[in-house]
Amino acid sequence: MSTTAITPTRAEDFPEWYQQIIRAADLAENSEVRGCMVIKPWGYGLWENIQRQLDRMFKDTGHRNAYFPLFIPLSYLEKEAAHVEGFAKECAVVTHHRLEAGPDGRLRPAPSAQLGEPLVVRPTSETIIGAAYARWVQSYRDLPILINQWANVVRWEMRPRLFLRTAEFLWQEGHTAHETREEAIEETEKMLGVYEQFVREHLAIPVLTGEKTANERFPGADSTLCIEAMVQDRKAIQAGTSHFLGQNFAKAAGIEFTGRDGTRQHAWTTSWGVSTRLIGTLLMAHSDDDGVVLPPRVAPTQIVILPVTPKPESRDAVLAAAHALAATLRQQRAWDERLTVEVDTRDLPGGTKNWEWIKKGVPVRVEIGPRDLEKGTVAVARRDAGVKEKAFPTMVDFTAGAVALLEEIQANLLARATAFRDAHMVRIDSEADFRAFFADQAPGGFALVHWAGTSDDENRLREELKVTIRCVPFGDAFAEQGTCLLTGRPSARRVVFARSY
Amino acid sequence: MSTTAITPTRAEDFPEWYQQIIRAADLAENSEVRGCMVIKPWGYGLWENIQRQLDRMFKDTGHRNAYFPLFIPLSYLEKEAAHVEGFAKECAVVTHHRLEAGPDGRLRPAPSAQLGEPLVVRPTSETIIGAAYARWVQSYRDLPILINQWANVVRWEMRPRLFLRTAEFLWQEGHTAHETREEAIEETEKMLGVYEQFVREHLAIPVLTGEKTANERFPGADSTLCIEAMVQDRKAIQAGTSHFLGQNFAKAAGIEFTGRDGTRQHAWTTSWGVSTRLIGTLLMAHSDDDGVVLPPRVAPTQIVILPVTPKPESRDAVLAAAHALAATLRQQRAWDERLTVEVDTRDLPGGTKNWEWIKKGVPVRVEIGPRDLEKGTVAVARRDAGVKEKAFPTMVDFTAGAVALLEEIQANLLARATAFRDAHMVRIDSEADFRAFFADQAPGGFALVHWAGTSDDENRLREELKVTIRCVPFGDAFAEQGTCLLTGRPSARRVVFARSY
Repeated sequence: MSTTAITPTRAEDFPEWYQQIIRAADLAENSEVRGCMVIKPWGYGLWENIQRQLDRMFKDTGHRNAYFPLFIPLSYLEKEAAHVEGFAKECAVVTHHRLEAGPDGRLRPAPSAQLGEPLVVRPTSETIIGAAYARWVQSYRDLPILINQWANVVRWEMRPRLFLRTAEFLWQEGHTAHETREEAIEETEKMLGVYEQFVREHLAIPVLTGEKTANERFPGADSTLCIEAMVQDRKAIQAGTSHFLGQNFAKAAGIEFTGRDGTRQHAWTTSWGVSTRLIGTLLMAHSDDDGVVLPPRVAPTQIVILPVTPKPESRDAVLAAAHALAATLRQQRAWDERLTVEVDTRDLPGGTKNWEWIKKGVPVRVEIGPRDLEKGTVAVARRDAGVKEKAFPTMVDFTAGAVALLEEIQANLLARATAFRDAHMVRIDSEADFRAFFADQAPGGFALVHWAGTSDDENRLREELKVTIRCVPFGDAFAEQGTCLLTGRPSARRVVFARSY
Repeated sequence: MSTTAITPTRAEDFPEWYQQIIRAADLAENSEVRGCMVIKPWGYGLWENIQRQLDRMFKDTGHRNAYFPLFIPLSYLEKEAAHVEGFAKECAVVTHHRLEAGPDGRLRPAPSAQLGEPLVVRPTSETIIGAAYARWVQSYRDLPILINQWANVVRWEMRPRLFLRTAEFLWQEGHTAHETREEAIEETEKMLGVYEQFVREHLAIPVLTGEKTANERFPGADSTLCIEAMVQDRKAIQAGTSHFLGQNFAKAAGIEFTGRDGTRQHAWTTSWGVSTRLIGTLLMAHSDDDGVVLPPRVAPTQIVILPVTPKPESRDAVLAAAHALAATLRQQRAWDERLTVEVDTRDLPGGTKNWEWIKKGVPVRVEIGPRDLEKGTVAVARRDAGVKEKAFPTMVDFTAGAVALLEEIQANLLARATAFRDAHMVRIDSEADFRAFFADQAPGGFALVHWAGTSDDENRLREELKVTIRCVPFGDAFAEQGTCLLTGRPSARRVVFARSY
């Protein structure tokens, strides 16, 4: 019999473990609509926190929200050749605007209500937003435009996986237009920085920042920057991207302005996005064989209070103490937001309730029983440590230390994820070592290698070893002279190879 | 030459005036996708405030958010006969999941990627959410389920109008399932109460609450409750609905549970929603011939500060004072949220900027110039009054009184809208008077009449006079004995007839 709450464990079968922790935490489930998920309240609560906190960062960097149509006319998509090439294979296409009963009495799309031009459900909104910007921009005075949209998008996925790859997903997409190339590049880099900071400080995950090679670039972009996280099976997850689109989409959509020198010019645009994929990333980065582990900063509930009421005569007093503690804690703030505290008064066995919250990943659990009331004590357990916390013998101690405890858990998760990532990110300098590192049964990780190969070389390695270049990472740590392990050509910077989701 | 900022005025051409105030305030625009709008930042800012404030009220009444698929299999929609009958005529239908180049080289839906079962873009989510609840509910212990979703929905509109009637719109839809009929009815009424309170206290619009007749009922509901607002052309707008769905959708979707008595039973469900239509309602309720007028509680910016900088030598001091005032105001709270204040430092003529903010409907404008700095004064203008506010001769007075001023403006807008509505809501007791009230050139309004007619009678009046029963209103004010003005049959309560959007 297993001694963990989740079967199988991470070591036994990582992909199945991932499905099981999501089920055990009641985060989401597959719907009967192929590839589309239902995000349940505990999972959506995570997304609400991510959304609110990121939104604040977008507004602090000068962006405002707006909303653009769900449907994109086919002809818009066609305007940018690389873009349509990249998305045509996975588009949901609306062809009719009415249903009617067919000859067999069953409903069917009404033949008389066929659209003159099919509409595509947005897989991303560069083209439809570009058409709006073309209307809005006349002069350099109308620039920059700094807009973000929170929305659902659809990409028909053949192999869906909850949160990580679903046909419909929720995301934000920033779309900006600028007067100069330099400003647009600055924006692209700035928003990558926002993502890196958010994922590190809020989700407690360290990420590499870098640039994609041409193979992995966004269809239609001049360059794609990304943040890459490592999760516990040592695979990479692209957790966010920021694209410098050059003038490609401005030319396709006609975003033109009269410049300071009186000439007509095309704007320079960017786009950047993160999605519900962030939830999949954090689940795979932090959770353990007892279920989900959530960073306090984004947990829907940070502290759950479990009243222990063995005897009817002390029940009211225990419940009153539990609610009083909750009220006191809710007055406090961590990361400039009020603590979120729940009192679980359900009439279920204490062990059942305790394990439910463990599996849900709530950062701190507090038990209060009749004896605690007598002695002024509480029993505190932290989800990241798996043992009872001894630092708070009394309720007074806990009330005074709760915020610091949450901060400590947040810091511990980041430290743990960073140590794991660093332990499995290795410099590799020969093709043989590289092939051994990514051999069939080998655990793999992030391979930092010198690279001067071609796109075809990348494709071949992808076929043979199922690995791709996740990014050409930024930072001095990766800048060094060397020779490409495949071609022997000189290289001035290491790239990161890994298997990925 | 017109003396108003908007042409035409409300009196001259109300529908065109409505289009023009939206354009002048830069709230939204039509997209090239038929019936779909682009919500621009100022309009979306309104929606964000509505969303955040309503969300708080939903959570305070025990609801949590979740997210369900955008696509509904055709077969789900067919399960509830009245429901599909109501929505089949206006559905966007997805039939393919890939594009490819056709014989002419142009993109087309790939014939090989036709879906086995077409998918409908959700016009509302009772059926897809019902399918999930059927999975989740086994026992009475699993009830109630109290869930809300913020989402986009699509209903193919033949005569779209910005915010009021668009093919795609944003909304929230609450979906709850209960053990008993009584509980479900209580929920339906409770959420109608939340809507009434929100629209009155936050949007400053008085609404009638009541029940729809069978003619206007939600397709598939046992009863539909609604809130009905009157706007300035005296037409009605249905601003929100709350449906008691009986066991209809539970039977269609199979939401069954084992009850306390051990028998298998169908759940009782409700659904309730408001949408971006609320924005259209508030625009038509409060705005004037100079443009939009916004209630302070939902205005994206409550106070705009306009620095007057005629001379370069005093420019820095004026800007510093403007920013200092903004910082002081932002420390204050109205309705438990921080004041939103903007300093407009754009290098444009003062009159241009002032009129822009008038047209945008910002509740309070404050001018600060070099002479104000010397004398410690400010010039305050309130949007609802159209004259300079004399109550705050000094900057100190204004800082101390800003919150009260916003509260006063909010109260004034509600009082004004209530007086207008009450002045145009009249008791009518003969068919002749009724026909005169709704004659072609007559201004109309809300006609309170005794009614005991049939659905056919309602349909005939709709054809002849373009009026419908907006609701059978709740409240003692409408309970009185009388006789139906059409049939002469006895009636115990007046109903409300009006033209509507």
